[in-house]
Amino acid sequence: MPLNSRIERSIARAIAAGQRGQAPPKLAAALDYAVNPGGARIRSAISLSVSLACGDDQPVVSNAAATAIELVHCASLVHDDMPCFDNADIRRGKPSVHKAFGESLALLTGDSLIIMAFEVLASAAAAGPARAVGLIRILGESTGMPGGICAGQGWESEGKIDLGAYHRAKTGALFTAATRMGATAAGYEADAWAELGARIGEAFQVADDLRDALYDEETLGKPAHQDEVHNRPNAVSQLGVRGAIRRLEDMLSGAIASIPSCPGEAALCEMVRKEAERLTPVIPAQYLV
Amino acid sequence: MPLNSRIERSIARAIAAGQRGQAPPKLAAALDYAVNPGGARIRSAISLSVSLACGDDQPVVSNAAATAIELVHCASLVHDDMPCFDNADIRRGKPSVHKAFGESLALLTGDSLIIMAFEVLASAAAAGPARAVGLIRILGESTGMPGGICAGQGWESEGKIDLGAYHRAKTGALFTAATRMGATAAGYEADAWAELGARIGEAFQVADDLRDALYDEETLGKPAHQDEVHNRPNAVSQLGVRGAIRRLEDMLSGAIASIPSCPGEAALCEMVRKEAERLTPVIPAQYLV
Repeated sequence: MPLNSRIERSIARAIAAGQRGQAPPKLAAALDYAVNPGGARIRSAISLSVSLACGDDQPVVSNAAATAIELVHCASLVHDDMPCFDNADIRRGKPSVHKAFGESLALLTGDSLIIMAFEVLASAAAAGPARAVGLIRILGESTGMPGGICAGQGWESEGKIDLGAYHRAKTGALFTAATRMGATAAGYEADAWAELGARIGEAFQVADDLRDALYDEETLGKPAHQDEVHNRPNAVSQLGVRGAIRRLEDMLSGAIASIPSCPGEAALCEMVRKEAERLTPVIPAQYLV
Repeated sequence: MPLNSRIERSIARAIAAGQRGQAPPKLAAALDYAVNPGGARIRSAISLSVSLACGDDQPVVSNAAATAIELVHCASLVHDDMPCFDNADIRRGKPSVHKAFGESLALLTGDSLIIMAFEVLASAAAAGPARAVGLIRILGESTGMPGGICAGQGWESEGKIDLGAYHRAKTGALFTAATRMGATAAGYEADAWAELGARIGEAFQVADDLRDALYDEETLGKPAHQDEVHNRPNAVSQLGVRGAIRRLEDMLSGAIASIPSCPGEAALCEMVRKEAERLTPVIPAQYLV
């Protein structure tokens, strides 16, 4: 089955489990709305690609890892869009969850998706209990405090920002989780895979900064120029457009170079290369002179 | 070590782990603020009491279960107090988390505490991996969708409420989790313990309805008469004060009768009896005629 179908099927199964029986109908609908139609599913694609590169000997566990990462990512988008954070009306080209369902259901949607992510991993314990527990540990570490995406968001409320800790937590943690969890799901040691995730994460952050600065809301499918509006530290304000593009290219080369030896190494390099092309924004002519 | 000290020590250890290293300082402070000083810690006391009644052969796992339950309970209070839900300015006699730290940090505090609860359980896997996975499953089931406290809150956004599902999810789920997790932590089969938790949960809901109706904000340490203000279904409006008191007494007798056979059965009955006395509100004279 192609990578993307595996991810979509596994996500759909998790959402359906959260909607069964006597679930409150609006919250049940909001769960689905928050994760479908998805974005690029890039974090889960990375996780599953790493599992495949490591042999994918327990596909149920690999699917669970990829799904859990996507669920917490979607949860973070739902909470991040809320009025007390970015107050974003649009996400993936449609009204954000709090715009479509109201704030209280948006808050609960995020909470429920976080919890669902851990449930998905726990349910993989039947196939491999040690791996499931390892995955739950990594997911917790990369989403909560003191170093996960919650911590990253938390830095935005501080007067003095520790920029390194901020980026590592806000964006990096979940990419590092993706490669580490992909490896863990296939029975490989997680830590050797952290660098690949960290480099892809940094590249993704720079690409995101570039798109936020260069594209408009219609192209992005969400509000543009948010870094400038919220005066957030970003690669374009620090390095300029051309500097940021060079940084992006370096990071992706570093990512490919960091891939540990594994059965599917060549295919994984190819996947990262393709992802890199997709990530790199189309640069308006005036910056290419 | 007395039950309460075990719980407080274990909670303090979990919070400290969430604050270490490069954590954003305000969010780190908010985590502590949200759980300390605690309320009665009734859910974790029930969990640990059941573990003790079942032999408590893995104290580390019993402590983890009790702590995880308290963390998600505190998380639910933080989110529940926010303006999009109850908009409560006061909790446990001090400003609620969003009043003290702002809405965005309150949202992140709740998220972080939920995640921390799962991390605490995963860290108990070293002592007993099968039990840890069992605990994670029960915690997920009782906090998320379709039947956990998120589902319970979700019902409040519905025009037509399924009252049974609402109460089971909003209050009952975490009490049922407390007895089931207490038993699981000590290596006992969880399901036999569900009825005890369900009955204590129902009794607690009725007692809470009574206190909300009869007490003022100063006595409660949080806004009073909220059921009336938000027009929420409650035992006092359905049964009257005297009817609600009779219902409470019946439920607690039922709870004691439901305790499964276990080494510490007598002590557990005594604990539930004491808890029952503590739960029952002082009834103003006019209702006793």
